[in-house]
Amino acid sequence: MPESEPPIALDAMGGDHAPHEIVAGAVQAVREHGLSIVLVGSPRVLYESLADHDATSEIPIVRAEEALAMDEGALSSLRRPRSSIAVACHLLRRGDASAVVSAGSTGGVVATGKLRLKAQQSVLRPALAVALPTRPRPTILLDAGANAEVKPEMLVQFAHLGSAYAETAYAMDAPRVGLLTIGAEPEKGNKLAKRAHELLKATHGITFIGNVEGHDLLSGAADVIVTDGFTGNVALKTMEGAVRYAFTELSESISASPMARMGALMQRGRLRDLSRRLDSEAYGGAALLGLNGTVVIAHGAAKAASISAACQLAATLSRRGIVARIGERLATGHRPHRLW
Amino acid sequence: MPESEPPIALDAMGGDHAPHEIVAGAVQAVREHGLSIVLVGSPRVLYESLADHDATSEIPIVRAEEALAMDEGALSSLRRPRSSIAVACHLLRRGDASAVVSAGSTGGVVATGKLRLKAQQSVLRPALAVALPTRPRPTILLDAGANAEVKPEMLVQFAHLGSAYAETAYAMDAPRVGLLTIGAEPEKGNKLAKRAHELLKATHGITFIGNVEGHDLLSGAADVIVTDGFTGNVALKTMEGAVRYAFTELSESISASPMARMGALMQRGRLRDLSRRLDSEAYGGAALLGLNGTVVIAHGAAKAASISAACQLAATLSRRGIVARIGERLATGHRPHRLW
Repeated sequence: MPESEPPIALDAMGGDHAPHEIVAGAVQAVREHGLSIVLVGSPRVLYESLADHDATSEIPIVRAEEALAMDEGALSSLRRPRSSIAVACHLLRRGDASAVVSAGSTGGVVATGKLRLKAQQSVLRPALAVALPTRPRPTILLDAGANAEVKPEMLVQFAHLGSAYAETAYAMDAPRVGLLTIGAEPEKGNKLAKRAHELLKATHGITFIGNVEGHDLLSGAADVIVTDGFTGNVALKTMEGAVRYAFTELSESISASPMARMGALMQRGRLRDLSRRLDSEAYGGAALLGLNGTVVIAHGAAKAASISAACQLAATLSRRGIVARIGERLATGHRPHRLW
Repeated sequence: MPESEPPIALDAMGGDHAPHEIVAGAVQAVREHGLSIVLVGSPRVLYESLADHDATSEIPIVRAEEALAMDEGALSSLRRPRSSIAVACHLLRRGDASAVVSAGSTGGVVATGKLRLKAQQSVLRPALAVALPTRPRPTILLDAGANAEVKPEMLVQFAHLGSAYAETAYAMDAPRVGLLTIGAEPEKGNKLAKRAHELLKATHGITFIGNVEGHDLLSGAADVIVTDGFTGNVALKTMEGAVRYAFTELSESISASPMARMGALMQRGRLRDLSRRLDSEAYGGAALLGLNGTVVIAHGAAKAASISAACQLAATLSRRGIVARIGERLATGHRPHRLW
């Protein structure tokens, strides 16, 4: 890591397990992955927490006495210019941080990020991108919840944002973009999807493979799947719920007979690995794409390992220049408004 | 079964495995569940298929030489008044059948049903209801795909349709209705969901418990979950895909080590049971609610057992008077247009 690279600003006060799991995640990111981190939050509390890890000399603290509560939404971010997430964004904006990571409420982080960092030039709406645990390589779903109401041309931009993300974070070449809807034929779907299909087909610079359906989120049929933030959020949570359900059912089924229980013991390690990989905990966080700076939102229930993973994702996106790549994509003739 | 009850009209030409699996399902429904069935389709083909089961004297055939192909959509149903599904609807309409069951393309069956049977009085839009395998009792999701674009007042009607379905098919008392959106607070969601929340809160005759999210589809938090047909269809297919994914991952994980494989052998039977219960095959089909007659749409890939289950569901709904119950709900002061 070059000496000149600024640290990642980690919002230490956001998340169900803040600040202790956040601090533990920071320590893990620094010690195990060599990242440079600055914690943003209440110095007294954070100093004590760092002391528990003997890490007071390894990780600096930037003061922010306020914090957004997990149930505070978009509006509260306007009322709290000194919240830990606002201060973290401020560090990024003035070049004292290379990226922001927060496990705070999605609505609050999105609103604060948009307010403090502003959308990149030409970006109509920043969007939340999540990497689903598809194999052999992840599928990027966006928008996962930043925009409940969108227009067709925004979905075209999401295709660019998602393609840039797939290229940057996963070194994918010409990522295949699918449109999430309710049938393979171009005329299947609601008005938004039908119009977006036409626009995507006519857009240069993305590899549009057509419509995909709900079961394709984990089938590997597409590398990037675009949809509005309402549908994307429902689909993401449905997926998490269904995977959790399948494992619960399985555990009950396993513990129901002594013979099966014996078998289960033998498999426990593998099951645990699998479950961890599938769990939303391990996604490493959602990237808020289209802002003037890299912002990663970890799961609200994130513990140390997830926080560390989110910091790694933020570092990768920042080092490989996701913001510049999105800028290039939207500037070099790939703008959807060329189409009409 | 009273002698006077007309048989169920089973579209023998619709579905990926028509007609043989459809006929096998009919035979199963008649012999194992005592249902009365009439097969609708090509007499020559169906007679041969029935002969394979020695069932030519048990199940009558009604001629329909045309059929909707699985890739034919809504419009084709208008052009084919003599298709097997159209003839089945005709039998129901003139009282010669008590219900219709088809594994044909959802779009085609929905369009034909609406055209031939018409919507019940006061019903703005018929909707597709699916019973999810939630425990201890199913959760009804609607609309699962009949209406890609809806208005808020339609979601209120869906709440009535779904409540009537839960009461009729599962004898639930005062089923709890949730609105599918992207956050627990009333103001979370798109415009449609926000307005629908207000209307549902003000509607008498349903037990509205507020917003639910994607992970609640299988959590048992609500007995009935209402949403537009676009979101509902994406969520349903996402759920099916995620459950399938979890089991594939699990099978691979199981076969990856000899010790685990040994354990797996012991569990195979239980796993198979579980997988079958979760599989979309076993849902018994989606009910198209709000028409002047009971229509059940089996999965396109349905085999004999699913067809038999769909016939049982159709018989239950018809015997217990789902159409009358919906009529009562929409007629007795529960109409949403009372609200504005």
